[in-house]
Amino acid sequence: MKIGARNVLRGKVKQLRHGVVNMEVIIEMPNGNEIVSMITRKSAEKLGLAVGKEVYAVIKASNVMIALE
Amino acid sequence: MKIGARNVLRGKVKQLRHGVVNMEVIIEMPNGNEIVSMITRKSAEKLGLAVGKEVYAVIKASNVMIALE
Amino acid sequence: MKIGARNVLRGKVKQLRHGVVNMEVIIEMPNGNEIVSMITRKSAEKLGLAVGKEVYAVIKASNVMIALE
Amino acid sequence: MKIGARNVLRGKVKQLRHGVVNMEVIIEMPNGNEIVSMITRKSAEKLGLAVGKEVYAVIKASNVMIALE
Amino acid sequence: MKIGARNVLRGKVKQLRHGVVNMEVIIEMPNGNEIVSMITRKSAEKLGLAVGKEVYAVIKASNVMIALE
Amino acid sequence: MKIGARNVLRGKVKQLRHGVVNMEVIIEMPNGNEIVSMITRKSAEKLGLAVGKEVYAVIKASNVMIALE
Repeated sequence: MKIGARNVLRGKVKQLRHGVVNMEVIIEMPNGNEIVSMITRKSAEKLGLAVGKEVYAVIKASNVMIALE
Repeated sequence: MKIGARNVLRGKVKQLRHGVVNMEVIIEMPNGNEIVSMITRKSAEKLGLAVGKEVYAVIKASNVMIALE
Repeated sequence: MKIGARNVLRGKVKQLRHGVVNMEVIIEMPNGNEIVSMITRKSAEKLGLAVGKEVYAVIKASNVMIALE
Repeated sequence: MKIGARNVLRGKVKQLRHGVVNMEVIIEMPNGNEIVSMITRKSAEKLGLAVGKEVYAVIKASNVMIALE
Repeated sequence: MKIGARNVLRGKVKQLRHGVVNMEVIIEMPNGNEIVSMITRKSAEKLGLAVGKEVYAVIKASNVMIALE
Repeated sequence: MKIGARNVLRGKVKQLRHGVVNMEVIIEMPNGNEIVSMITRKSAEKLGLAVGKEVYAVIKASNVMIALE
């Protein structure tokens, strides 16, 4: 599948925090920055997420805000 | 102001594409990756966005999806 | 790419409405229902969208609200 | 109340999965497709959600991404 | 229709800014605060929006971030 | 930090409801209206949220829908 979302960032799963129906996924990018994602547990199971697994963080452009220092 | 959003990524404005009421902002991160944001033109004006300006891309964790290769 | 989003609905592009930086995409599902999507023009170009093309509408579960009659 | 959201899809609640503060709602549409929604438990209670209840899935167009096979 | 979204704020349309496919809607609440919404033009037409019209701003709880001074 | 989001509403934390990985935050605005936010627990901890604390609800314009009575 080819996704149209403008932001697709590669990284590895660093940590998984299990909620009852949701899952917090911490992704480490090659430069050491982290991206945090909150998805359903079912989605995490469907993807077979585990620490160390290579994943992409996918973000629609309309969900990116901008801030200044 | 201190924002609670879990994802705050630093970069520089690389390109601005003006719509009538919206603005597409392309941000280049230090590692060369790009983040694309769609915001209102008024927001871009409020922030004084211009090519080369240092900005942060701010993304709520619940807006980050995960994909596999 | 395999996307974790829980909602992936198949259809065909019925209409494209061009904004300056955004694009409204109307998708017709096999049962005749329509799904409307607003994406960046660049995303539409990246996907080569055109009327009649088979596409998927992808929606994160946290972006689905519920209403009653 | 008349909602402006462009996507309003009719279906029946097929399953409810209770988290502590959130609730996953699986909706079955007449054609057999499923839509998954994550809402607050309080919202589910306010709506009186139960298996079999007729509901609408409501999705803002800017939250619909597009993908190709 | 009864919407499950947790945030439903009443106000009046103060200004409409027309894009090609989108519309920026500025809503004034009774206390003088403003809420800004970006919707599709088609949605604005479907609702018959005009300056002075009484409307509700509807926001899903998962789209509300928190910040400190 | 200066955030570009168009909607920044001031209030006080009225109630916190702890999930396992998420937190529901109920904010009371000066006029008595409430805003409900769902954020990660980690975000709430980072901000040091507690009942009575002064906070801002931050909402991107593209996440505000409009409805009529």
